[in-house]
Amino acid sequence: MVKWHDVPPSHARQFLEPGPVVLLATHDGGRDNVMTMGWHQVLEFTPALISCLVSRGNHSHAMLRRSGECTMNVPTSALLDTVVRIGNCSGADLDKFAALDIAREPARHVAAPLLPQCHAQLECRIHDDAMVAKYDLFILEVLRIRVATSPREPEFVHYIGDGKFMLSGRRVSRKRLFRPDMLGN
Amino acid sequence: MVKWHDVPPSHARQFLEPGPVVLLATHDGGRDNVMTMGWHQVLEFTPALISCLVSRGNHSHAMLRRSGECTMNVPTSALLDTVVRIGNCSGADLDKFAALDIAREPARHVAAPLLPQCHAQLECRIHDDAMVAKYDLFILEVLRIRVATSPREPEFVHYIGDGKFMLSGRRVSRKRLFRPDMLGN
Repeated sequence: MVKWHDVPPSHARQFLEPGPVVLLATHDGGRDNVMTMGWHQVLEFTPALISCLVSRGNHSHAMLRRSGECTMNVPTSALLDTVVRIGNCSGADLDKFAALDIAREPARHVAAPLLPQCHAQLECRIHDDAMVAKYDLFILEVLRIRVATSPREPEFVHYIGDGKFMLSGRRVSRKRLFRPDMLGN
Repeated sequence: MVKWHDVPPSHARQFLEPGPVVLLATHDGGRDNVMTMGWHQVLEFTPALISCLVSRGNHSHAMLRRSGECTMNVPTSALLDTVVRIGNCSGADLDKFAALDIAREPARHVAAPLLPQCHAQLECRIHDDAMVAKYDLFILEVLRIRVATSPREPEFVHYIGDGKFMLSGRRVSRKRLFRPDMLGN
């Protein structure tokens, strides 16, 4: 049994800033979809803003735009093969949840599902779509973050192109070199 | 002696998509400056577009905006203490290059310097400043990428907040699970 706890949306940087591949899930027209996504960044702590690029070539693009909501789920290396398979088929052709046997649970603030096989789940709502027409870039507000209580140092997956991934490695602290006002988040 | 080679700007994702901390260098008013930055993402292969958030509270913000140019330099863990020190002082107060003994070399397309202690250097020019007023978000075009020929699997640093870093770990391939048209970049 996985145990979960919530952390404040302002802590989104702990999960997204190191740059892992995430699984972006949407719900629209009575159906769920999920895509693999690595083009995202943090924009602001409060409100907790992030941006992500979802190309109009992806089936998720219209689903995200119409529903205005999604979840971002951060998988570990245990799920890597599924992560790759999700990224190499389209929700236009099949129900990825059924075809790839992906578990899902209801979210609290959005209709898109949470993926409990992932270490962390972020519930998000579109905050600003001004850059969608030009760049397919969505600015999202993180409404809630749910995290598994263990392991403490999950092995996330980071895409480096051409079918290759970097797995996240050991953690080190340099807290002693920081100004106190630079710490906290 | 470090040996260098250039890779196409469209390969920027290999360095930025996994989410490392970068050193963003600028040149304006006859002076160089450098900041530590982790809020960036990839937007497009061709033209090679990336976005990055440089807060107006950073001395580099005005320098980037006025000059329209910068370099992004990707450090390895060998430079971690310097990376943290760069992020905990301001170019408004001191010359970071002198104070922290940071090497620099001329770039080819921009006036901002390259940092040869870093594994890779990206020369960038502002492509679109439409999101600067609202989010301090700059959209940049990558003009050139210079990379050290070794090591093949550098240990980059990824910030996870509160003074802690994740070091990039081992690389794995899942090329066999990709559709051929999803590979290449």
